[in-house]
Amino acid sequence: MTMSLSAELWPDVQPEAARRLMLAGVESFARRGYHATTTRDIAGNAGMSPAALYVHFPSKAALLFAISRSGHEQSLALVRRAAESADTPVESMRSIVERFVAWHARRHTVARVVQYELEALPEQEYEVVADLRREIERIVRDLVAAGVASGDFTVTDPTTAARAVLSLAIDVARWYSERARKSPTDLGAEYAALALRMLGATPD
Amino acid sequence: MTMSLSAELWPDVQPEAARRLMLAGVESFARRGYHATTTRDIAGNAGMSPAALYVHFPSKAALLFAISRSGHEQSLALVRRAAESADTPVESMRSIVERFVAWHARRHTVARVVQYELEALPEQEYEVVADLRREIERIVRDLVAAGVASGDFTVTDPTTAARAVLSLAIDVARWYSERARKSPTDLGAEYAALALRMLGATPD
Repeated sequence: MTMSLSAELWPDVQPEAARRLMLAGVESFARRGYHATTTRDIAGNAGMSPAALYVHFPSKAALLFAISRSGHEQSLALVRRAAESADTPVESMRSIVERFVAWHARRHTVARVVQYELEALPEQEYEVVADLRREIERIVRDLVAAGVASGDFTVTDPTTAARAVLSLAIDVARWYSERARKSPTDLGAEYAALALRMLGATPD
Repeated sequence: MTMSLSAELWPDVQPEAARRLMLAGVESFARRGYHATTTRDIAGNAGMSPAALYVHFPSKAALLFAISRSGHEQSLALVRRAAESADTPVESMRSIVERFVAWHARRHTVARVVQYELEALPEQEYEVVADLRREIERIVRDLVAAGVASGDFTVTDPTTAARAVLSLAIDVARWYSERARKSPTDLGAEYAALALRMLGATPD
């Protein structure tokens, strides 16, 4: 179970022990917060010794950075692909919201760490992640502006509207659980319609 | 400074030492998370001894509960007053979003603790807070349903739409800071227009 989930979450990370530590880190940080978690806790959750952890990550901060950077890179790739998947601002935005919402629902434990533990990152690492976030915001903002230019959207401030669209998706990580009434895919479709309407488009 | 802020945040809490501890708790929990904060840290931040803390709060959990319950009671009162402040679903909803967003922006540090440290509450205390949250959601959902019935709103699922409206406001606590380009009031007005449009109403 754990092995296959970590491989699904981080297909690019090798070896498997490093992925196992990232998954143990996610679970520990999500449960008790970054600052209250020790490298000993994480190693223990991964069934490894603290010394074995340091073979893969020189510090707890390095492990958080690996989790955060990977989550942001995946989000950026997803948003970029979605934006390019359609020819009109309306359909590109629908695709972004559908996929970004579904990602935050399906990966809500990882997403919580990625979204809420940013300030625990050391300054240089924070800047790397902040660049990825700015790029995600830029894609969504440019798409809102393109939709305003084409007459599909009617918002007055694309920056605020883009942030509101992203907020809808990000906040899913806070409240979504396996007990939610809707599947990640259904929630994504419903939120996409709400977001399009928010931007002044007719979703159907 | 600290005295007046704590009096503004918790006008009903007496004596002033208890308010000072709540403010120190908010600042410590927001910075390092609930689990990584000790009662000694909090007492120190408030300029008091650990023994003096226990005079007012029997445990760290009791302090978190006081902060969380008060924040939720304030939110509920604000949402209830806003809902009753106008005669139509559109104007009531506008007022709710304006005030709820502004509250999360102005009180973003308190709101972060209130919104993101729920799971650290002991079970009984969690249930008290969960009841307050359900009541906030019920008011917003009933208003969405009333707007659908009156033909002002056109959403298909009032529960999901109500949650999306609340998400817009709650996520403000995550990203808002004193460096934000917009004042809490301006942000509230802009988000109210976005939320009304999301519900299928014409905001102007």
